[in-house]
Order: sequence, then C-alpha cells, then structure tokens
Amino acid sequence: MTTTLSMLETHPRRADVDRTRLAAAIDSLNACAETCTACADACLAEDLVADLTRCIALNLNCADICLATARMLSRHTAEDGAISRSMLEACATACRACAEECARHADRHQHCRVCAEACRSCERVCRDLIVALR
Amino acid sequence: MTTTLSMLETHPRRADVDRTRLAAAIDSLNACAETCTACADACLAEDLVADLTRCIALNLNCADICLATARMLSRHTAEDGAISRSMLEACATACRACAEECARHADRHQHCRVCAEACRSCERVCRDLIVALR
Amino acid sequence: MTTTLSMLETHPRRADVDRTRLAAAIDSLNACAETCTACADACLAEDLVADLTRCIALNLNCADICLATARMLSRHTAEDGAISRSMLEACATACRACAEECARHADRHQHCRVCAEACRSCERVCRDLIVALR
Amino acid sequence: MTTTLSMLETHPRRADVDRTRLAAAIDSLNACAETCTACADACLAEDLVADLTRCIALNLNCADICLATARMLSRHTAEDGAISRSMLEACATACRACAEECARHADRHQHCRVCAEACRSCERVCRDLIVALR
Repeated sequence: MTTTLSMLETHPRRADVDRTRLAAAIDSLNACAETCTACADACLAEDLVADLTRCIALNLNCADICLATARMLSRHTAEDGAISRSMLEACATACRACAEECARHADRHQHCRVCAEACRSCERVCRDLIVALR
Repeated sequence: MTTTLSMLETHPRRADVDRTRLAAAIDSLNACAETCTACADACLAEDLVADLTRCIALNLNCADICLATARMLSRHTAEDGAISRSMLEACATACRACAEECARHADRHQHCRVCAEACRSCERVCRDLIVALR
Repeated sequence: MTTTLSMLETHPRRADVDRTRLAAAIDSLNACAETCTACADACLAEDLVADLTRCIALNLNCADICLATARMLSRHTAEDGAISRSMLEACATACRACAEECARHADRHQHCRVCAEACRSCERVCRDLIVALR
Repeated sequence: MTTTLSMLETHPRRADVDRTRLAAAIDSLNACAETCTACADACLAEDLVADLTRCIALNLNCADICLATARMLSRHTAEDGAISRSMLEACATACRACAEECARHADRHQHCRVCAEACRSCERVCRDLIVALR
C-alpha cells in the first residue's frame, strides 16, 4: 500500500473525483513511469539494441509524460478540468504507443512484456479518469 | 544563443518540421518551465502568499508540462505525430491558464508579469507547432 | 507489490547491489517524491499557508531530488559508483531537511506527519545504499 | 538573453550568492540538461548505437541531475547550503562522467562534441558555485 491515498485523505481540499480512484490512478502513473525508465535502460543493455531504439525513445517519452501527469493529479489547489483532461489524453496516447511497441518484443524480452502491461493498464486508467472528470 | 539548433543540425535523423522553428519551440518551452519554477518560488516568498496559492499550483503544473513537452520534442528517434500534437495541446492549455492567473497579479508582482509573458509566448509557440505538424 | 523488482530481474545486466534491496530503495524514493509533491500542495491549500512556505519549498526540492535519484538507480547500463554515491548523499540531505521541517507541523497537519515519515524512511534507505555501494 | 536574471531580480528574497552568477549557473544547467537529452536521442539514432549505450545512459542521468539542480537553485524560499552543495557536487560528478564519455566519440559524432563541451562548462559552473556558497 502506498501513502497516496493517505495524502489525499489529509489534503484540506477535496479532489474533483473519488479519492480511492484518484489515488489508484496516481499510483498507476508513477508505476508506469518507473517501469518505462527501467525498460528503456534494459533495452539499452540488450545485445540487439539496434532493434530497440524506437522502443527506447517511446519509453523515455512515456516516462516523462506519466510523471508530469501524476504530479498534476497530485495538485488540487488549482484543479482545472481542461488541463487535466488534455494531459490525460496526451498520456493515454503515449501509453498506447509505448504498449504497442513493447508488445512487439514481449516474447523475446521479458522487460518489454512487463512494460507493455504497465502501459496498457495506465492507458485504461487515464481514459477512465477522463470520463470521471467530465 | 543556445545549442539546441546545433543539436538538431547534428542529429542523424531530420525532424518532421523546420529545424529553426523546432529549436525555437524547445527553447521557449524550457524558458517557460524555468520561469514558472522561479515564479512559483517568488510567489511563495511574498507576504501575501495566501492570495497566490492558485498561481503557485498553476506555475508548478505548467513547469512540469513544458519540461515534458520540450524533452519529447527533443527526441526524433520515435517521432509520433499523435503524441506530439496531444502533448502540445495539453501544454498550450496549461500555459494559457498560467498566463491568465499570472496576469491578474502582474501589476503588483513583477515576477508574475514576466511569467505571464513567458507563458503567453509559449502557448503561441505550441499552437503554431500543432499547425506545422499537421 | 510494484513491478520494480520484476524489471530488475529481467534486466540483461546485474545491478551492483542486491536486487531486492535496490528495488525497495527505488520504490521508497518514488514514494517519497510522490508524498512530497502531495504535501507541498496540501500545505498550499491550508489557511495558514504563510507558516508553511519553507515546508513547501523543501518538499518541492525533495520531490525533484528523489525522482532524479530513483531514475539514476534504475539505469544499470552505465553504473558509476561516484555518481550514485554523491547523488544518494544529496538525496539523504534533502530528505533529512524535509523530514525535520514537516515534523514541526506534524501535530497540526496530518499530511506533514505522513510526509515526515516518508522522508525519514527514504533518508535511511539512501544512507544504507551508500554503505552497500562501497 | 533568458529571463532567469529578471526572475531573480524580481524575487522578494535575495539569493545567497551574486544574482548574475546564479542566473548564469541556472542557464548553464538547463542548457546542459537539454543538450544531454538531445545527445541521448541523437546517439540512439546512430547506426552504431551499440557503441554508444554507455554514452546514452550517462546522458540521461546527467539530464535528470542537471534539471533537479537547476530547479533547486531557482528556489530561495528555503535555501539550505548543505542541500545546495551536495547537489552541486553530485551534478559536477555526473557532468564530468558524461563529458568524458562524450569526448571519446567527439570526432565521429558532432552531437557528442557539442555535448561534451556543454557538460564540461556545466561542471565548472557547479564547482565555482560550491566555492561561492561556502
């Protein structure tokens, strides 16, 4: 269990969406960011790195975008539906592209298999939250 | 002069848009990120910080989103129009919200005046790049 | 359970330290970064924000430094003991300063209590890893 | 000219060191972060990427550490000499390692030549600031 939910529960302002769902979304985004950072480096260390350069670049993009999204969702002092939705949209797009690329190497590289799942699950979380924020 | 253009010119892959324009966009995003980080801290140090909490939170969001966008635009190995456009859209939205909030305090706080301009200019850069990427 | 350990186990290169310990350290750093980001925003939303500005600034520093440290520890392709140790040293210093400041408000603000604990635990993790990396 | 100096001049609190020097340091750190991000991607796009994996990983570390350092130096509300010095120490170490690795490929890859210079100059800036902060 992470402390994300405790932090939401002790925040003086209520978030715009259900706290349990929001905490799960933030955790999923942070986990996906970490997994993509690790997958980029694991790909870099493979003998056939030349086949994985697109995967590495998509991993790096996905990590940065997931992180910025998690941080934004952790701030409730200036919640702004338009920023949240557009950022979640961008994040879902980045997660899907990364999931698809990782899935192509999933049978040869276990780290890509784990990462593809993290990205797919994170994409779903982003899309669900967009609906919840409407 | 930054080295952003030199780095684009020595990259083995051509970017999808004109290099001079892309380098200017990356520089504008990095400058806006830095300005928003500095403005958040300057607001925090003001006596009337209680009036500036929304401004601080929008500054922090804008800084993180500009940075993630600049990094993504610096990667050409896996250029993906859908990710670029949606991220630029989110970034323009965050810049506009931050510019509007900063503009409200621009007469009392010089740092907010400088930041409002950086955000407005960065929003324009993002919107122009969305058109160029189509 | 996070996927951090799975990612370490499927990485083609062995890390310089025990994987279970390293995975726990990365998870602790990411959790501390998230907690500090959330605590900064919770402080910002408190009525007496003027008393919490030092806490907010230390939270923001700690979040950025923990994140950069977690990312560095997730990369094994160019492991460099000197960088790892000095970065862990900086991170432990930032965590201690943030823990001490948060502890001062822990009785009035639950989010500061949770954050003080996350920072203290993360400081310990960093110091243990410095010893293990020698 | 960046707006970093204007932001320092309009900040309600004076920084611990000379503003012109501090603004130059922040600009140098941000420029080095951007250059390293770009160099990592340029290396990734080279045919002989397999020879550049150590360079890429050091670039990614250096970019993250420079960025966290620039952000910390942009916050004066909770200036803490111990955090600043240890972070600048870590940053100088990361910049030196990256400069040395990039210098090895500088004759074949122009982006590594530009990046080696940015890292060397940033290392110097960090070391000078450590002295000034004493």
